[in-house]
Amino acid sequence: MPCNLDMNEIGVRAKGASRVLARTSGRDRSAALRAMADALAADVERILEANARDVADAHAAGLAAPLVARLRLDRQRVDDMCGRLLVLADLPDPVGVVLEGFTGPSGLRVERIGVPIGVVAVVYEARPNVTAEAAGCCIKSGNAVILRGGSEAFRSNVAIAEALIAALGRVGLPEAGIQIVRSTERSAVDRLLTLTESVDVLVPRGGRSLIEHVNAHSRVPVLKHYEGICHLYIAADAPAELAIGVAVNSKCQRVEVCNALETLLVDAACAERLLPGLTEALRARGIALRGCERCRRIVPEMDLATEDDWRTEYLAPVLAIRVVDGLDAAVDHISRYGSGHTDGIVSLRSDWIERFVTGVDSASVMVNASTRLSGGGAYGLGAVVGISTDRLHARGPVGVRELTTYKWVARGNGHLRT
Amino acid sequence: MPCNLDMNEIGVRAKGASRVLARTSGRDRSAALRAMADALAADVERILEANARDVADAHAAGLAAPLVARLRLDRQRVDDMCGRLLVLADLPDPVGVVLEGFTGPSGLRVERIGVPIGVVAVVYEARPNVTAEAAGCCIKSGNAVILRGGSEAFRSNVAIAEALIAALGRVGLPEAGIQIVRSTERSAVDRLLTLTESVDVLVPRGGRSLIEHVNAHSRVPVLKHYEGICHLYIAADAPAELAIGVAVNSKCQRVEVCNALETLLVDAACAERLLPGLTEALRARGIALRGCERCRRIVPEMDLATEDDWRTEYLAPVLAIRVVDGLDAAVDHISRYGSGHTDGIVSLRSDWIERFVTGVDSASVMVNASTRLSGGGAYGLGAVVGISTDRLHARGPVGVRELTTYKWVARGNGHLRT
Repeated sequence: MPCNLDMNEIGVRAKGASRVLARTSGRDRSAALRAMADALAADVERILEANARDVADAHAAGLAAPLVARLRLDRQRVDDMCGRLLVLADLPDPVGVVLEGFTGPSGLRVERIGVPIGVVAVVYEARPNVTAEAAGCCIKSGNAVILRGGSEAFRSNVAIAEALIAALGRVGLPEAGIQIVRSTERSAVDRLLTLTESVDVLVPRGGRSLIEHVNAHSRVPVLKHYEGICHLYIAADAPAELAIGVAVNSKCQRVEVCNALETLLVDAACAERLLPGLTEALRARGIALRGCERCRRIVPEMDLATEDDWRTEYLAPVLAIRVVDGLDAAVDHISRYGSGHTDGIVSLRSDWIERFVTGVDSASVMVNASTRLSGGGAYGLGAVVGISTDRLHARGPVGVRELTTYKWVARGNGHLRT
Repeated sequence: MPCNLDMNEIGVRAKGASRVLARTSGRDRSAALRAMADALAADVERILEANARDVADAHAAGLAAPLVARLRLDRQRVDDMCGRLLVLADLPDPVGVVLEGFTGPSGLRVERIGVPIGVVAVVYEARPNVTAEAAGCCIKSGNAVILRGGSEAFRSNVAIAEALIAALGRVGLPEAGIQIVRSTERSAVDRLLTLTESVDVLVPRGGRSLIEHVNAHSRVPVLKHYEGICHLYIAADAPAELAIGVAVNSKCQRVEVCNALETLLVDAACAERLLPGLTEALRARGIALRGCERCRRIVPEMDLATEDDWRTEYLAPVLAIRVVDGLDAAVDHISRYGSGHTDGIVSLRSDWIERFVTGVDSASVMVNASTRLSGGGAYGLGAVVGISTDRLHARGPVGVRELTTYKWVARGNGHLRT
């Protein structure tokens, strides 16, 4: 495979492959996913070797330890990638599904049918498993994919992609169905943003600067994977054990991910009852707390939260806590500072739950459940290319169904418009 | 109502209204639509008077007769607008619909629920009935709308919008649910394109220059209503009567609309049999024909079509005709020159029909039916804000369902991620 394909040529090749993929059967695409899993397993040595060089460079460059940990692959993680591809292989085919159908009064038969979007470009940072997961989702849904990973994982991503591409060829699908951009320059991303003739959607996954750059400059439609400033509201009636369990899991189960808790809102009516236990449990897990003035009157041993804290996605063992006057104040805080990713409530009162569910305008609303449960896993999507914080097309996890669009097909026997 | 609201203020007001509208019941929104219909009926004199001034200005400015005809309102057309609003009132409510729901293995109950998009901005040219139809669709689906019509219809649009806005107030919904931009400057549109904090989607309906401008500059997500270069492919086996009936209706029933036929593709295997009859029937309806060389060998009395003709949306009594070598050549022509709006086939062979339906990547594929039947009417949508030629979110007609997005709601009883 040539190493310095012009971006425009990558786009043209992807478009051509997407036309072929759109006409393949679900059976052929599932076979491709199994071949892709086999190829990763067979290439594990080469992939780990490439990854070891990425990790060595990251160490040398002084990359922070949690980021190096995210970057590092081992046999288990490669095995997990294979497993995700096999799960995708067994999911129902979203292409050709009749989404609705009816016969009009005149006898015209109308159907709306799922079809691939076409060419999906995924621009991502950090974890190399995204390479396999994004490629798998796109092939499953009949799309061609252009992958552009982060520079830290460059060799790992290329090694993974090469295995996947070869697998496509082995089962007779176009190798250009998966392409990886062999450049870590930002200019390569900028070129992608202009390929309106060939790229149908761009999925950026990464930090704020990447997303803002893409949003400001893309002429291609974008499905953003933006930040998760996730809230949990502890209602006045919340039982202590439930509130503590959900809050601790939401914040602590993993801190560096987008659906981890960032701000805890505690109703003023239960703050004295619950804050001491909540803060003690969180602190015992090593979480640094930043509270509002009213918080600190109840639990003095915490830093004062500033306006900036309400707007911050820490992705770290830090939590902001605010006492709010009732459910509406909680909803207002979330409307004002939230990012529409995942927000939850702990309460046993169904009227309050419904008001919260209706009032909070987020991709995922969790009721008496950890914010960490929002996403493709709990929602049965198998694997995802990202989690959309946009409102159009797909909201929340973007899996194989979300990588399809539809066409209308109307069948008549000489039906005319009068 | 103040006349010179700053665009940013319009956006902020719309956002506020959208939050209120999102929490209204379907019953209240249907009542609002009935009140809007009543208001148009009550204000018919004022609306016709405003329209008469627009029409007089258009005449004075030398606007082409078909455009003046599109602009002109009479009692019947106002009545039709009222009728559309009443149809919308009776459609099922798309807000709150459980799109899917399941209980996961752990007992977590997950539902995907329809919710309004939020704030919809519609930028349109020409016909004033769009004002009522777009506003009706948005209110029905719980969205706030910002309307920005064309300068020719400025007074008509304002008169219609004022009636609709007053109706919202009368039923207790926020008047800012419908706002009309009282400026015909392009700069007002440019400001709309930057309102990422308040506008959730922009729907441009108009000529190529508007669409290209919006596409190049918008930071707000766009649902384009672009051109319709619609094709009809007459397969080798097509019966003469069926072919002529569908072709003539597709081209002639109305020429200035986006789903009117622009290029007729005739299979080489039936060209000698069908072209004379087809061209005679079209010419009898006053259609000027432009054919390829092979067409002209069979029917010499037509102009030679150039490459430009294949790329032109005439919106006029002109038709391009090309002889193609088989179904795949027809699909290739459509892939290359089409706009993905509406394309059709005339054939009785089901294997050919299926190959065409699968191969043609258009929002609507018509089988033995007029291209003029693609759209909200035949598809049961009631009314639409436009016809999307984009691939994401909505493809083809954009009705009330397409003006919603969804949220995921997960309900547990202390469910945690392990």
